[in-house]
Amino acid sequence: MLFEITQQSSECAARTGIIHTDHGDIHTPIFMPVGTQASVKSLDSSDVKNTGAEIILANTYHLHLRPGEDLIDTAGGLHRFMGWDGPILTDSGGFQVYSISDQRKITEEGVIFRSHIDGHKLLFTPENVMDTQRIIGADIIMAFDECTPYPATKEYATNSMHTTHRWLDRCITRFNETEPIYGHSQQLFPIIQGSVFEDLRLQSTEYCLKQDTEGIAIGGLSVGEPHEDMYRITEQICNIVPKDKPRYLMGVGTPANLLECIHLGIDMFDCVMPTRNARNGMLFTKEGTINIINKKWEDDYSPVDEDHTPQYSKAYLKHLFKAKEYLGAQIASEHNLRFYLWLVTEARKQILADTFLPWKNKMIAKLNLRL
Amino acid sequence: MLFEITQQSSECAARTGIIHTDHGDIHTPIFMPVGTQASVKSLDSSDVKNTGAEIILANTYHLHLRPGEDLIDTAGGLHRFMGWDGPILTDSGGFQVYSISDQRKITEEGVIFRSHIDGHKLLFTPENVMDTQRIIGADIIMAFDECTPYPATKEYATNSMHTTHRWLDRCITRFNETEPIYGHSQQLFPIIQGSVFEDLRLQSTEYCLKQDTEGIAIGGLSVGEPHEDMYRITEQICNIVPKDKPRYLMGVGTPANLLECIHLGIDMFDCVMPTRNARNGMLFTKEGTINIINKKWEDDYSPVDEDHTPQYSKAYLKHLFKAKEYLGAQIASEHNLRFYLWLVTEARKQILADTFLPWKNKMIAKLNLRL
Repeated sequence: MLFEITQQSSECAARTGIIHTDHGDIHTPIFMPVGTQASVKSLDSSDVKNTGAEIILANTYHLHLRPGEDLIDTAGGLHRFMGWDGPILTDSGGFQVYSISDQRKITEEGVIFRSHIDGHKLLFTPENVMDTQRIIGADIIMAFDECTPYPATKEYATNSMHTTHRWLDRCITRFNETEPIYGHSQQLFPIIQGSVFEDLRLQSTEYCLKQDTEGIAIGGLSVGEPHEDMYRITEQICNIVPKDKPRYLMGVGTPANLLECIHLGIDMFDCVMPTRNARNGMLFTKEGTINIINKKWEDDYSPVDEDHTPQYSKAYLKHLFKAKEYLGAQIASEHNLRFYLWLVTEARKQILADTFLPWKNKMIAKLNLRL
Repeated sequence: MLFEITQQSSECAARTGIIHTDHGDIHTPIFMPVGTQASVKSLDSSDVKNTGAEIILANTYHLHLRPGEDLIDTAGGLHRFMGWDGPILTDSGGFQVYSISDQRKITEEGVIFRSHIDGHKLLFTPENVMDTQRIIGADIIMAFDECTPYPATKEYATNSMHTTHRWLDRCITRFNETEPIYGHSQQLFPIIQGSVFEDLRLQSTEYCLKQDTEGIAIGGLSVGEPHEDMYRITEQICNIVPKDKPRYLMGVGTPANLLECIHLGIDMFDCVMPTRNARNGMLFTKEGTINIINKKWEDDYSPVDEDHTPQYSKAYLKHLFKAKEYLGAQIASEHNLRFYLWLVTEARKQILADTFLPWKNKMIAKLNLRL
């Protein structure tokens, strides 16, 4: 993998680039649709391609439970298992450990927790998470971290960060001892923690940078903290990380979050929001958000969105949701992903034309409107 | 509309033909995917087109409840409302009256029954059902009938048939008094009833034929009677109906049912089976049926079906069902419809080559296998 910067904004930290992987190029800034269980919810592989997605994300935790790495191994890796020939990134399970925290026990060795499916006990360690990600075979794999909850005391955040750092060392060791299985290369990204404390974030960024990986990720944001904190920490980290590393802000966010963080120098994003909100009838458009459940759309025969979903009217989509036809969730999910991919593609164009900043400010004013 | 026969088998009653409608030609024998609520479940319009479907079916009963004919009227008809530019056929609601029979009251005027959604009282009459179908705007619309339950006494079946006949007269009168709304022509098909009694079926066929409609339908089959009765009645009716009318066997059926009834001279079919069974994990292939829930497919990395779904393995599809990912139902639904449309297309080719009968016998032996 090699990251090349193709344009740097003259007005802010925004930049465009290309991440080269053995499964193809990723043009940054990029949004990665989430395919937790080897499926981007309610889209097939060709639908996903049609949204403009260049890379998708899958979850080590979920894939370990179902179908399990043995079946993925026999299939020849996740790309072949799910019929997706583009790049894939896998999350390490650190976030799942965080989000099911009432049932976890963190030790120096790793985390003991219970399967959300059948309650059986699982132990995730830096080593076995690296092994699993080797078998899954994603192009970019993530270090096993503890995602520090928000809010956290300074003491908790400090200890938690040090655990993440010690685990990172073990991840790197295991990663270097092992080889890719399927003939394509894999890159490991460390995850910066430290909650909303700038001294910890500085320490963690420096620790992660020492590992000299091809890219770097920011974890522990978008976990309930105010947007101002998210932006403050993101800006701080982007100012420290050398320009030649792609920066991945994990689990972010709304369309406005994406634009603000592109502005600060972020290159990669993932979030369940476009698909999850779609299933609840929420649509993102460049004029603002639509709640298609709302009665006002019942007799609105204008397209859901002229640019991304011209073939269906709002009235029809509302009917599908009202009639509980799953096609409603499908159309809305595909729409929202098309919109997210359009947004990052347009951001790239604006950065290349060095017109990003005024465009971003104009867009954000509209993105937050409720139509 | 005009029906032309393009080939008549020399060995049996099977034939190929073309039904011309203002929304395009339908090559018969044809299978019509069911889009009850203006949506073929879990397929969007382009997916439906990709299955090879040339006409889809929608339900007057369901559309009357949701979204209601006012909204369809404002949209400019069902074609525009749902974004489907091919031919559409609407069932009249007679079958829904049958299938919710514990809450219905049949009178001479029509049927009083309760909405399955909110329990409010509805009255369907031959006249208002014609009016609703004018507003929906399907290319082929069905007479309002009483679908005689099975089993029925001879007396019940006789009275029920006469009701259907009197309602047919009223449907024809109303149909002739009204005009298509959207500029394309509509054709009304009468429905032959008479349960499994040949003398009643003869009487009903002759009654329906007197109306001199462009096509004719057989109702009251595939409602629980043995397959032998279905085939016996279908054969009897096909022997009476003049060759120049397309014959639509309502609600049928399995792939083997389709081939047997094509053999007897049927031109049009519809059934929820391919999509409903798909949602339960049942796949139709030309080698037999697959229950993808079965553990045996867990590590089978061969394609779901080389011809119709080559891009996904059985192991992946099984994983999606196990993980409760809705994409499983989507892939299976699209697969089954592709298979049904392949089956009727292949039947056409075999009839044109006058090799239908041996091909049908060979196929049926395999279609009934469980893989």
